[in-house]
Formats: sequence, C-alpha cells, structure tokens
Amino acid sequence: MAVNLHDTAYALETAIRQSAEYTQLQEAYKVVNADPQAKQMFDQFRQIQMNLSQKQMMGQDISEQEIQQAQSTVGLVQQNPKIANLMQAEQRMSMIIGELNQIIMKPLEDLYGKM
Amino acid sequence: MAVNLHDTAYALETAIRQSAEYTQLQEAYKVVNADPQAKQMFDQFRQIQMNLSQKQMMGQDISEQEIQQAQSTVGLVQQNPKIANLMQAEQRMSMIIGELNQIIMKPLEDLYGKM
Repeated sequence: MAVNLHDTAYALETAIRQSAEYTQLQEAYKVVNADPQAKQMFDQFRQIQMNLSQKQMMGQDISEQEIQQAQSTVGLVQQNPKIANLMQAEQRMSMIIGELNQIIMKPLEDLYGKM
Repeated sequence: MAVNLHDTAYALETAIRQSAEYTQLQEAYKVVNADPQAKQMFDQFRQIQMNLSQKQMMGQDISEQEIQQAQSTVGLVQQNPKIANLMQAEQRMSMIIGELNQIIMKPLEDLYGKM
C-alpha cells in the first residue's frame, strides 16, 4: 500500500515538473539569473524578505524603518520586468502548490474535523 | 496541463485515504472517541500542546512549570493504551506525509537550489 502511495506522489512530482506553471517559473528564473544586475537586485530583495520573516517568526519587533525599506525594495524590484515576471510566476506556482496541498490534506482534515 | 495536475493530486488523496496508515489512524481515533475518559484526556493533552506551540510561535516565554506540566501530561496519556496507539498512528501518518511532501516539493527545491 505504501508503495502505491509513493508511486502516486512521484506521479504528482512529474506532473508538477511538466506543468505550464513550473516551466514558466523555471524560464523566469533563467532569465533573471542570466542578467547579473537583475540577479543581484533579486538576491538583495530575497535577503530582506528572509530577514523580516525570520524576525517575525522569532517574535522580534520590526521597526517602521525596516518596513519602509522592504516596501521601497519591492517597488524597486517590481520595476525590473524580468523580476516582476519571476515574482508573478512564483505567485502562480505557489497558488498551485496551495491548491494541491489542500486536496492532499483533505483526508487528515476530515479526521481532525470529526474530533 | 493544470487539469492533469489536479487529477494527479486527487489520485494521491485517494491513495492516502486507502493507505494502511490512514485507515489505522482513522480506527485509532474511533477507539479513543468511543471512550469518554480517553477522549477527555486526549483533548486536554491536545489543548496543552496547542497552547505551547502557539506561545512558541509568538515568541513568548514558556515557563519551567509549563514544560513540566506538559511532560507529566504526555507521561499520563501515554499510559492509556488507546491514546498511546493513536499517538503512534499519528506519528506514522505524519512521517508518511513528510515523505510525500519531500517528493512533491523536489521540483521547487531543484529550482531554488540553483539560485
């Protein structure tokens, strides 16, 4: 039974790899990576995002200045069409992953809902 | 393409529902739910667990007393064979879910690893 479970998970993995959303995301990454200036900008943006969410998870205060810095960085990177395209592709992919997770987690939800 | 993705996710959902791990978990829940004393004990235990993990997420301090209370509750509920059985079934299911997630998230890992 467990074998069948894993086989089906691998089938889903393949379906994700072959999906339009994944191949577009892959392509969008390639385009950003091939442009050193865009890549540097995007890396900085990621770093700021990660720092903020780490602080949030650890319950640390986020200053007004940090929020403003993050917002202006988002505004800046969004002006770069390659990065904007990548961020849109990421959003679409993350929506799909969310949908898939909802489907897959339904059996457990059904169980816990009954408790 | 997206249709195929969702179809495959539904196939995985069905495989989870039919897996030995899920049906055993379902059965273990039924047994605990059918025993009011065990159910109450388990609900209390869940509540303590949830409070602690909420505090942790919000970066609040967890007192020595709270840790001791949680540990003694775990010790207590583990002595109930129905609850011990349920907790083992939950652990096995959560291991399976972890494995499935690792398989499904591989495409994204591959992408982000390359950045």
